[in-house]
Amino acid sequence: MMLNDRVDALVSPKGALEMLSQDEIARMSEDSGELHELFRRCSLAILNCGSDSDDPTEIMSVFKDFEIRIIQQERGVKLELKNAPGSAFVDGKMISSVREMLFSVLRDIIFTYHEYNLSRGLGEASSDKITNVVFELLRNANVFRRIQSPDMIVCWGGHSIARHEYDYTKQVGHELGLRELNICTGCGPGAMKGPMKGAAIAHAKQRLNNGVYLGLTEPGIIAAESPNPIVNQLVIMPDIEKRLEAFVRTGHGIVVFPGGAGTAEEILYLLGILLHPKNDGIPYPLVFTGPKESAAYFEQIDEFIGAVLGEAAQAKYQIIIDDAVEVSRVMKRGMEEVRLYRKAHQDAFYYNWKLHVPDEFQRPFEPTHENVRGLNLHFGQDTHLLAADLRRAFSSIVAGNVKPQGVASIKELGPFEIHGDKGLMRKLDALLQAFVEQQRMKLPGSAYVPCYKVVTD
Amino acid sequence: MMLNDRVDALVSPKGALEMLSQDEIARMSEDSGELHELFRRCSLAILNCGSDSDDPTEIMSVFKDFEIRIIQQERGVKLELKNAPGSAFVDGKMISSVREMLFSVLRDIIFTYHEYNLSRGLGEASSDKITNVVFELLRNANVFRRIQSPDMIVCWGGHSIARHEYDYTKQVGHELGLRELNICTGCGPGAMKGPMKGAAIAHAKQRLNNGVYLGLTEPGIIAAESPNPIVNQLVIMPDIEKRLEAFVRTGHGIVVFPGGAGTAEEILYLLGILLHPKNDGIPYPLVFTGPKESAAYFEQIDEFIGAVLGEAAQAKYQIIIDDAVEVSRVMKRGMEEVRLYRKAHQDAFYYNWKLHVPDEFQRPFEPTHENVRGLNLHFGQDTHLLAADLRRAFSSIVAGNVKPQGVASIKELGPFEIHGDKGLMRKLDALLQAFVEQQRMKLPGSAYVPCYKVVTD
Amino acid sequence: MMLNDRVDALVSPKGALEMLSQDEIARMSEDSGELHELFRRCSLAILNCGSDSDDPTEIMSVFKDFEIRIIQQERGVKLELKNAPGSAFVDGKMISSVREMLFSVLRDIIFTYHEYNLSRGLGEASSDKITNVVFELLRNANVFRRIQSPDMIVCWGGHSIARHEYDYTKQVGHELGLRELNICTGCGPGAMKGPMKGAAIAHAKQRLNNGVYLGLTEPGIIAAESPNPIVNQLVIMPDIEKRLEAFVRTGHGIVVFPGGAGTAEEILYLLGILLHPKNDGIPYPLVFTGPKESAAYFEQIDEFIGAVLGEAAQAKYQIIIDDAVEVSRVMKRGMEEVRLYRKAHQDAFYYNWKLHVPDEFQRPFEPTHENVRGLNLHFGQDTHLLAADLRRAFSSIVAGNVKPQGVASIKELGPFEIHGDKGLMRKLDALLQAFVEQQRMKLPGSAYVPCYKVVTD
Amino acid sequence: MMLNDRVDALVSPKGALEMLSQDEIARMSEDSGELHELFRRCSLAILNCGSDSDDPTEIMSVFKDFEIRIIQQERGVKLELKNAPGSAFVDGKMISSVREMLFSVLRDIIFTYHEYNLSRGLGEASSDKITNVVFELLRNANVFRRIQSPDMIVCWGGHSIARHEYDYTKQVGHELGLRELNICTGCGPGAMKGPMKGAAIAHAKQRLNNGVYLGLTEPGIIAAESPNPIVNQLVIMPDIEKRLEAFVRTGHGIVVFPGGAGTAEEILYLLGILLHPKNDGIPYPLVFTGPKESAAYFEQIDEFIGAVLGEAAQAKYQIIIDDAVEVSRVMKRGMEEVRLYRKAHQDAFYYNWKLHVPDEFQRPFEPTHENVRGLNLHFGQDTHLLAADLRRAFSSIVAGNVKPQGVASIKELGPFEIHGDKGLMRKLDALLQAFVEQQRMKLPGSAYVPCYKVVTD
Repeated sequence: MMLNDRVDALVSPKGALEMLSQDEIARMSEDSGELHELFRRCSLAILNCGSDSDDPTEIMSVFKDFEIRIIQQERGVKLELKNAPGSAFVDGKMISSVREMLFSVLRDIIFTYHEYNLSRGLGEASSDKITNVVFELLRNANVFRRIQSPDMIVCWGGHSIARHEYDYTKQVGHELGLRELNICTGCGPGAMKGPMKGAAIAHAKQRLNNGVYLGLTEPGIIAAESPNPIVNQLVIMPDIEKRLEAFVRTGHGIVVFPGGAGTAEEILYLLGILLHPKNDGIPYPLVFTGPKESAAYFEQIDEFIGAVLGEAAQAKYQIIIDDAVEVSRVMKRGMEEVRLYRKAHQDAFYYNWKLHVPDEFQRPFEPTHENVRGLNLHFGQDTHLLAADLRRAFSSIVAGNVKPQGVASIKELGPFEIHGDKGLMRKLDALLQAFVEQQRMKLPGSAYVPCYKVVTD
Repeated sequence: MMLNDRVDALVSPKGALEMLSQDEIARMSEDSGELHELFRRCSLAILNCGSDSDDPTEIMSVFKDFEIRIIQQERGVKLELKNAPGSAFVDGKMISSVREMLFSVLRDIIFTYHEYNLSRGLGEASSDKITNVVFELLRNANVFRRIQSPDMIVCWGGHSIARHEYDYTKQVGHELGLRELNICTGCGPGAMKGPMKGAAIAHAKQRLNNGVYLGLTEPGIIAAESPNPIVNQLVIMPDIEKRLEAFVRTGHGIVVFPGGAGTAEEILYLLGILLHPKNDGIPYPLVFTGPKESAAYFEQIDEFIGAVLGEAAQAKYQIIIDDAVEVSRVMKRGMEEVRLYRKAHQDAFYYNWKLHVPDEFQRPFEPTHENVRGLNLHFGQDTHLLAADLRRAFSSIVAGNVKPQGVASIKELGPFEIHGDKGLMRKLDALLQAFVEQQRMKLPGSAYVPCYKVVTD
Repeated sequence: MMLNDRVDALVSPKGALEMLSQDEIARMSEDSGELHELFRRCSLAILNCGSDSDDPTEIMSVFKDFEIRIIQQERGVKLELKNAPGSAFVDGKMISSVREMLFSVLRDIIFTYHEYNLSRGLGEASSDKITNVVFELLRNANVFRRIQSPDMIVCWGGHSIARHEYDYTKQVGHELGLRELNICTGCGPGAMKGPMKGAAIAHAKQRLNNGVYLGLTEPGIIAAESPNPIVNQLVIMPDIEKRLEAFVRTGHGIVVFPGGAGTAEEILYLLGILLHPKNDGIPYPLVFTGPKESAAYFEQIDEFIGAVLGEAAQAKYQIIIDDAVEVSRVMKRGMEEVRLYRKAHQDAFYYNWKLHVPDEFQRPFEPTHENVRGLNLHFGQDTHLLAADLRRAFSSIVAGNVKPQGVASIKELGPFEIHGDKGLMRKLDALLQAFVEQQRMKLPGSAYVPCYKVVTD
Repeated sequence: MMLNDRVDALVSPKGALEMLSQDEIARMSEDSGELHELFRRCSLAILNCGSDSDDPTEIMSVFKDFEIRIIQQERGVKLELKNAPGSAFVDGKMISSVREMLFSVLRDIIFTYHEYNLSRGLGEASSDKITNVVFELLRNANVFRRIQSPDMIVCWGGHSIARHEYDYTKQVGHELGLRELNICTGCGPGAMKGPMKGAAIAHAKQRLNNGVYLGLTEPGIIAAESPNPIVNQLVIMPDIEKRLEAFVRTGHGIVVFPGGAGTAEEILYLLGILLHPKNDGIPYPLVFTGPKESAAYFEQIDEFIGAVLGEAAQAKYQIIIDDAVEVSRVMKRGMEEVRLYRKAHQDAFYYNWKLHVPDEFQRPFEPTHENVRGLNLHFGQDTHLLAADLRRAFSSIVAGNVKPQGVASIKELGPFEIHGDKGLMRKLDALLQAFVEQQRMKLPGSAYVPCYKVVTD
């Protein structure tokens, strides 16, 4: 498939009708409007699923003449596409999973607008309010419907990983799937795709027709990590913090594979939350795992966490090397603990209301040069607060690596400056250097130019 | 079943989970809150489906110790009931249709609150906005899902009708059902139940598992006309005007059986809309029908319409006496016209966006003594405006007859005074008098004391 | 609908394909063949569901030009009809339930031919073999698929009953349906239709989409008692004895309403079996019931049974007058006993293998004048053997009343002579006389000419 | 998983009940009976799906203490297993697909016994009769239910193929699956598994929940080529000839990948049929394909066919090298031709009744030394007759390679002697020699000892 193949098409949702009010259609159709542009960009990311690039700017520029419009019809709305990437089509007909995801994008943008962005003004919202909004977004996306019992395993890890690492993620997914567990990832290739692929084959062997492959993404990341076609439930959360909260509240356990800055961000986010005193005693199965070649990688991570957040943090996870069966057995047993806990505390199976997500982890962090400089990366504070700012530091690096705005601002103002305690900075620098050397910062093939500088106070 | 049988129960939604956010549960649970009281009253109306009374005050007083609460559980919410009417249960287990309707009430009150009452302030809303809100309420209630083609026949008529009239409504429903048409009514007994019962048997003969028996009600009427158990889709619209708009926008054709003031209100509402110049050319199959004993009744109505609104209004409907097969054939043919029209104009099958509902028919009318006195019931104005105020006059009579607030205000201040042109008032008085004589104002067994006085200017 | 309306049509099975081999099509298509004529006659009975006559000869003569043929098509077979009764159609389209039943007839005739009539020669078959064949016929008709737990209530009673009796059968059906029990009858009007109609409404209230209304018939009776359109599973058993065995092995409990000779035959069949020593201890809920006006009827029956078969027989049933709720509660409790018994004895829920049906009740009885004369109706034998011959006596009367061959042979040779002990004959004669007086022998409107003579030895 | 892991289990069919008559259970339960042993051997082959061996004797000897029994329970039958291979279980629970296949084996053995082996005596059956029996076996296995239009692509090819060949079969399966086509193969690994795996992923992308992966096998081959777990419809045909007829009558087009003697047998079978004059004009899409490394292989085959059967035979297929997209487009277009032809000739979509399968291809061929010697492998006869005997020659080699009886008789009596015309024998020998060199005769790892000798007359 040539990169510049172009297809025009009129697509309708399969099965279920998509019914929009005239208000909703009007709102999405203003050519110059913000919503329309957001919809167009996310749609393009979906349609571009066949491409190997993770450079959103490139994609946007190659398909700058792509257009999408909502058409009202007798049985519901249709989408009219012009100059869409050919890789989303087979003999001129759109692949169903792509079509489904297009309509997920439409649904989420409309609902997010409705619930959140404009009419509500979440900037001033309480922590509880945000948690309720995350719930409402996921409910509207039908995420909860199929959760009858704890079975949703979140898999985190890099989108740019080596072949043997990828094969291992497939094995783990296969073993999880054989145990009738479902998979949630952040969309995209690598460790986000492997477990779903393995689980899909295993679910077929177990004759599970309703296996869930849940992809949680957000507008800033979707172009760089477009959903793989196995994802059968896609939700576009409004920002990175809501997406992270969605992960930890819908997931019942988490498996972390090797990855780069994004994975480190996710680990720090979760540990910061689990370290909060209010979350003592809440079972949260957490395993770091990889093939035997990746053993060193997890030693580095473990050492960094031990040095920076202490033994209490290390006690929250288990490292299992090269044993997919054991990983999935640990998760399966963990599901039972989660089930008993939720039942005993009358908490929902489909949303972890009891988990306390402190305010620091909920507020959107804008990775500007100024905000990065302002991070408090010093010892002598509560570990969950230190974890929060470390999370933000990694978040900035992800933005500088792959998010359109971040990339642009690095181009203009140079690398982010990350300040902090000398000891801490040294540890951080070493970890980041290892990510670079292991080619975990970008898809292979392009040399990595760091978007950050680590500066000792 | 004794009227004072009482049952305590914990009920869960069947099949689909009902997932509420903590915000939503909290909001419905404030004991003294308005929402909770609304929920309690509507629930009681549903649970009281086995009773023969249409006196809401009586029901509320008999079951004044009834209580209902939302309980959060692992798989979703449950409802905890105390002192619920025993007629909703079989050997201590709640009848499924009742259970389903309870959760419909919960859904609609939560959504209405969310979309409408408070955050939006619809008082100032444009006509378009109201139409969009009606759409959103119906969509949220899943009304549109099963409409693949025009097939929804609204049946209007009295809740207090004679046995032979009731049997005839069943026959018409049966013939409509044999032609695979669905039924929508305003809930309650009489002409609202007969067509559904007939259609249900016919659908079984046609092996249609997904026949729709749509009940549209509103909090003011639900206690007097509680949904019959055949209703398998129930929507509680926020007020009488939204409910009427829902009827004419989801229905594809309307059959009117004999009835009283409520039926007259509905007829005038629809004729007023159809007479608006913007609605010229929109096909809207409309038949007035009854058994041969009811021929005189429709002559009276027809004469009143002719005298008051003119021949143009009479041209909008067809009167068919004692021929259920012909009624259903007219409707079936009408569906095809509607289908072609909607297709040609790219209008949705499931919602009649093209129909113009003038502002006068959308604004809630509060039937106070003052408002009733202020109605403009004079010739020499646009017929659709005259129809609008006539509609309001009948609406007041319905309120004075059966709605709690209306009944209370009549008790306090005496009958409403309906003023107007002498000729018009004479016609009106004659029609109302006929309703009284035919026992169409209340369920038989109680003497009717008029809640109105017709006064000539 | 005029009796002589005629419709030509090409009908295909709804949903599931009906796939026949070329052999099967060929076999059914031989114009002069026995199978084709059997198929034609049964089909005509189905199509004639709208008629009020129970006179098969009349039906066959009115529609003597009716023809039906199997056509092979790309997606399966279709049926081509010529001069079919118009009452099976709505605006020229066949009613789905009728269509479904036509294909049930096709299925059963093909399978019966295959399994039974010809290749097997069941004449010499062992009792076990017959029981296995009955099982295979029911399995092939998909009867067992929906039986997850004991819930199938067989309702027996007359096809010609009074209005208040019919209304009572509806009430009982409604109460059974509210308790989520299913209904099996012998097809036809009266007590075979009422319970299904009541249960259908109750199942709708309980939102049961998969309620079963099982009709068991046989070629000799189908024309006189054509299946009502609520029947959603129809099986044509090869003869009256297999049909009776199907009743008692698929049913989990039996309710007997007032009826005539056919009902008496069924009662004697069942009591004869239950009285067999091998069936001691097998729970089999059995209730005789009717409205208060029918109390005398059951007193007569009870007295006859007491006098002829003794107290042991009377202990097998319970008589409940005018209490539909109590009838259905007795059945519901009985289902639990059946469930526990089957579980304890590892017997299937869907087929009562443990019940011993003695040879005397399995062998087809041909009601010729000679065979009737040869019945052994004397005291001093095992009660189950006496019951067997009494059953045959009533079976002859049914044949003489409504079955084509029986009617013809009575016309030719005069009434059957039923011989026996004086005391027994007197009791029998009185009972039969009561049936005649109560118009239980034929549909009202025609005077009854007895097809039997009771003769004392 | 160790080869000698053993599990005892009681398994029930998932979802649908499996209801057997007491006769059927008794028949399968006779310990020393033929049917029971057949069931035991086939079941073991299914359970052994995790193993890499294709040596049936080894499997049977390793698991000689394996036992299986049918148990009657309240909701249907269960299977009791002792000493079953551990690879069929995950944490002690049987994998669902394996469970499903076990019950397919049960179903087919019972039905085959019933329809075929014993009561019918097919030895004397006419050609038409055999075709009808094949139809009935497939219908009973529910194969036709999901065929709404021509879409079933049979994939033939070796179970022992190179990695790049296997990857190519996956690609072709993926492209076929993206075009919503289904896959049928002979079960087993290699070219029988790859297309299913590719299609399964493609169907998931197209959100097809009802993709069909049909495996057709027979008792003689099942142990050597046990069904891969993606197969979701498994049919055990009674012998190799019925299995071949099932392929060509249910398949709508055929793709041939590189393979060995079995593949050659299949090619000759199909060409022999297509060359028959009665089959002129029947569209049958047939493509030989492989990766570019396999180009030479197909040249050899093509040359052999040209030399032996002539250009008419070569005109029946198309060779496409290394172009999975083109293969699937050819098939997709071919489906449309098949659809139009069947429609025009009123032939079923789900069974190719019009195709004439000559008697020579239907009669079971027993590969004894004597029968092999008796083959007529000379020019100067009808090409379809020559193809028939060549097919038998290859069939013998398959038997000698992997079927238990064949292997035993080779061990006892030495290689089969294949006689014929000098020119023909030279061509044959060369082809077989190429198969040996390319390791297409057995799974790699074991040296191949030929089970045949080619002898020139």
